Amino acid sequence: MFPQYDVLVVGAGHAGCEAAASAANLGSKVLLITMNMQNMGQMSCNPAMGGIAKGQIVREIDALGGFSGIVTDETMIQFRMLNRSKGPAMWSPRAQSDRQQFSAKWRLMLESIQNLDFYQDSVIGLLKKGDTITGVKTALGHEIHSKSVVLTNGTFLNGIIHIGERQSKGGRMAEKSSSGITEQLVEWDFESSRLKTGTPPRIDGRSLDYSKMDEQKGDLEIKGFSFLNTIKPKKQLSCWITYTNPEVHQLLQSGFHESPLFQGRIQGQGPRYCPSIEDKINRFAERERHQLFVEPEGWNTIEVYVNGFSSSLSEQTQFKALKKVPGFENCKMFRPGYAIEYDYFPPTQLKLSLETKSIKNLFFAGQINGTTGYEEAACQGLMAGINAHQAVINEEPLVLKRNEAYIGVLIDDLVNKGTEEPYRMFTSRAEFRTLLRQDNADLRLTEKSFRLGLASPERLEKVINKKLEIGQLIQILQDVKLDPTDLNTYLDGLSSSSLNHKTRAAQLLVRPDVSLKGILSCSTVLKELTQSFSEEVIEQAEIEIKYAVYLEKEEEMVKKMSSLESQVIPDNFNYDKIKSLSNESRQKFNKIKPQTLGQASRISGVNPSDVQILMVYMGR
Amino acid sequence: MFPQYDVLVVGAGHAGCEAAASAANLGSKVLLITMNMQNMGQMSCNPAMGGIAKGQIVREIDALGGFSGIVTDETMIQFRMLNRSKGPAMWSPRAQSDRQQFSAKWRLMLESIQNLDFYQDSVIGLLKKGDTITGVKTALGHEIHSKSVVLTNGTFLNGIIHIGERQSKGGRMAEKSSSGITEQLVEWDFESSRLKTGTPPRIDGRSLDYSKMDEQKGDLEIKGFSFLNTIKPKKQLSCWITYTNPEVHQLLQSGFHESPLFQGRIQGQGPRYCPSIEDKINRFAERERHQLFVEPEGWNTIEVYVNGFSSSLSEQTQFKALKKVPGFENCKMFRPGYAIEYDYFPPTQLKLSLETKSIKNLFFAGQINGTTGYEEAACQGLMAGINAHQAVINEEPLVLKRNEAYIGVLIDDLVNKGTEEPYRMFTSRAEFRTLLRQDNADLRLTEKSFRLGLASPERLEKVINKKLEIGQLIQILQDVKLDPTDLNTYLDGLSSSSLNHKTRAAQLLVRPDVSLKGILSCSTVLKELTQSFSEEVIEQAEIEIKYAVYLEKEEEMVKKMSSLESQVIPDNFNYDKIKSLSNESRQKFNKIKPQTLGQASRISGVNPSDVQILMVYMGR
Repeated sequence: MFPQYDVLVVGAGHAGCEAAASAANLGSKVLLITMNMQNMGQMSCNPAMGGIAKGQIVREIDALGGFSGIVTDETMIQFRMLNRSKGPAMWSPRAQSDRQQFSAKWRLMLESIQNLDFYQDSVIGLLKKGDTITGVKTALGHEIHSKSVVLTNGTFLNGIIHIGERQSKGGRMAEKSSSGITEQLVEWDFESSRLKTGTPPRIDGRSLDYSKMDEQKGDLEIKGFSFLNTIKPKKQLSCWITYTNPEVHQLLQSGFHESPLFQGRIQGQGPRYCPSIEDKINRFAERERHQLFVEPEGWNTIEVYVNGFSSSLSEQTQFKALKKVPGFENCKMFRPGYAIEYDYFPPTQLKLSLETKSIKNLFFAGQINGTTGYEEAACQGLMAGINAHQAVINEEPLVLKRNEAYIGVLIDDLVNKGTEEPYRMFTSRAEFRTLLRQDNADLRLTEKSFRLGLASPERLEKVINKKLEIGQLIQILQDVKLDPTDLNTYLDGLSSSSLNHKTRAAQLLVRPDVSLKGILSCSTVLKELTQSFSEEVIEQAEIEIKYAVYLEKEEEMVKKMSSLESQVIPDNFNYDKIKSLSNESRQKFNKIKPQTLGQASRISGVNPSDVQILMVYMGR
Repeated sequence: MFPQYDVLVVGAGHAGCEAAASAANLGSKVLLITMNMQNMGQMSCNPAMGGIAKGQIVREIDALGGFSGIVTDETMIQFRMLNRSKGPAMWSPRAQSDRQQFSAKWRLMLESIQNLDFYQDSVIGLLKKGDTITGVKTALGHEIHSKSVVLTNGTFLNGIIHIGERQSKGGRMAEKSSSGITEQLVEWDFESSRLKTGTPPRIDGRSLDYSKMDEQKGDLEIKGFSFLNTIKPKKQLSCWITYTNPEVHQLLQSGFHESPLFQGRIQGQGPRYCPSIEDKINRFAERERHQLFVEPEGWNTIEVYVNGFSSSLSEQTQFKALKKVPGFENCKMFRPGYAIEYDYFPPTQLKLSLETKSIKNLFFAGQINGTTGYEEAACQGLMAGINAHQAVINEEPLVLKRNEAYIGVLIDDLVNKGTEEPYRMFTSRAEFRTLLRQDNADLRLTEKSFRLGLASPERLEKVINKKLEIGQLIQILQDVKLDPTDLNTYLDGLSSSSLNHKTRAAQLLVRPDVSLKGILSCSTVLKELTQSFSEEVIEQAEIEIKYAVYLEKEEEMVKKMSSLESQVIPDNFNYDKIKSLSNESRQKFNKIKPQTLGQASRISGVNPSDVQILMVYMGR
């Protein structure tokens, strides 16, 4: 019934959708299998994309030709650039989407890809020949053959839902769980473990009193995620902020005896930075309140999402406590929050391409690798899709370095450090975060993707022009000397010292409070010279001049690291021969099989002296 | 956690949505419980509403203030008035809808009703006090109390899905089934049985060759379903017609040994008039081909529905056979067709209000009563919602008579005759079908509904004006005499005999081929007199004049029936006392407990002489 596929993607969440799209757009013949075609591209939890570090990832996905940015832009109901008051390395776009539209848009985008087939079924086993994956077995009894397989199973693998003392099987609320894949992989000697995540209750927005909450409006100007010209909404919806209080905490505590978390029924570790409300009041007992964001689920729906109130306490407890939150006095629940436990595979079992080390052409992406978050899942899906395609055509995988992308940091962390709790991205995880900004993701990545054949010529052309213009503008700013009489009023206003003689624009820009927009408003000469440049280019030139010192410092560090990175360790390298290695390092090296000295140096528990020993040994 | 509700509706399909809407719009405090709030208002099978006799029902639902007509109008991708070539009693509107939009629109319409709450949970039991229902028990452990309960469980009660030799539990493909309700009702002495229905495979429209099929376009003018001014689409999509052939039939036959239908694994009876393709080739072995309608599932999606190819044969067999259908040579399946078995409750256990006879304030609507079809389900939901509200406020139920509405025919048939196979509506079931037209549903029903408080004043005003204008127009047509010189060219063109002297317009209209539009085009006098009338009014006046003889005949029959209908049989009537009744009739009377002599006369197996005996006995 089925042809032989190049790439078979299991699961149609954020990871699966991106994987299917990228592999098919690269030219592979792709099949996307999902248990329910009506649920493709679901936002299972918060109806939002982006945020700190995560927004950068979505921009990178877009720069590489993934679809998450476009889907978000075209379905957003609110946009905010977070951290605007901090340096540009911290600026992070975030958007609320209309949940239904987001899913519908994803499906339409996928349906428009010629090489992509769909099939609704549940995968219950995998097929291999020797050490190479060859396909999957399904619940409807099919054996579907494919040169490569990408698993993106989210929370579905042996998923168990917990609400207070109640447990039930399920991959999401009201959806079936999936079994067979874990069992198959364990039989093939994969290591598997359990993680846990959770979601808050959904509320009838008509039952809330918003006058007791603080309004949070969207930005006046919607920047969006995609570097293409996507259609942005003309109006936006507000979110609302309210807080828990000691009474809420006390009521929650009264339900701790039924908590699957505290009573040990949940074995899997939960996401440290996205804890349940009971976890927060338990861990931070001294805090009198926690912030809650009340977020609309779409343009017209009355359903709202209570961000910050994730819980697996009994529904009665959730409800009683929630009613003591200002604005929630008369709230009506549509459904309770819950926790879900699921299987994952510690990601040290992967190569940097996201291919598994033991089974050729088998790729993992998303929560199956122990991550949490739509953005983390989506970018892994994108990379797994790209590299599944590359494997099929016998080409080198695309591996992004830690200095090239947050995506590089994420995958490098996963593969080398593994994770024992749901891994989410932070800016602090990136040592080169001044380089890895949301505004330059296209400059960093689009060319790479174009060379593979994924990013469109349209994208590349935009990048080339942007680069050219940034160079031109920087040149102008370095050349043009500004007149003190033009500038001093502006500088006085900023309490910045006055100029005594003509000064180059670039030199002035280095001052902390001085902005390029400010300078342009003073100097008619400069304004005329720069009026043809887009806002994007102006922003970019300003950042490059203003943060030149930091950028240079990071560049230097990158060079140092690159020299380690360029020293490839052969696959069959025998660590047991090097007696001087510490036992711990030897074990880790044998387990992780780092592909470069750089990678070896970042394995947790490996000390620098062992890396030195390796370096010396390899120098021979 | 929950307040006491007036009406609690279980299930959010066509029946549940209408029930919740009507009860809440009448002022009851309503809770709608569904297993998955994302699946409200799903078209589980064919993405179309209306058709022969069914279109009339949707118009009746709309005339009564239900929402199905509005939802269909605003999501339609194609509209056709079927049977235009026949008399107006046969005209039947039918529309294809965008499946996703249909569901989304239903949800938004429900969310806009103030008195209506929602809850996502699965009902696993019922609560009663004495003989009165008091609420439900849910899977999440709640007891939710309500003065009345409407069950609209569709195919979910102990649903089992069959595909070839595979069976699995499920209420729909990829959705869980529901248990507990049947068991509870059986414990309360309800009789329960099994029915079966099926659905065809879903196909990737990109894989079809439409050049081998016949195009079926929508009507040039979209009439729509609602009597309100709904927004109709500006363009339409086409459906496509193709046929099976002996090779297809042979391939299907080769899979009969795996058929759950023919091998006896399916116990429930299937819908006679919507059989599976294997059923068709089995029952009509002499037919060389069967028609298939290839229907798009929405404006943009590539998914298509193969109307006429419902099957529970193995997926391989479905696929092999389908590939031999012209246009399907390279078809790709998204998912196979399947059969589903589910519990229903023979509807002779109901009153004409759809309340159960044995449990007060418990109502059933839709497939749980043994019907098939969205329209049949929706109208029962509407009536059950209305009558659950009426029960709560201690008012008389709304019962529509067989001469008032197809809805009346449907419920009367169910309650009095019961059904042992999925019941669907046909024009032939209505003895007064010239009266029960799609064009006059508003004239028949809106006033009744307005008196209850459901139909809006806006609706009533439209009906009153329409009635007035129809009367005026008929008067004009009866008064104005037409000149032979004006008319004879037109009549010659129709080969209708020429006029010798002035003739009244109404008299001329009785001739079979003569149309009011035709007459108007000939007579400037008449044209001027009638130019202020809407097309609706013109159509109505024409029908009333043209079909006056048939209408009068039916009205007379109605009167005869009414005299029986007006003779109420007391609830506690003792049939055992009347020795002269036949045993069969006595048993049926005791079981059905007819509320009137009219109802008694329509019970299957009851002969007229027994009705005569009853009449005489009651006359005393």
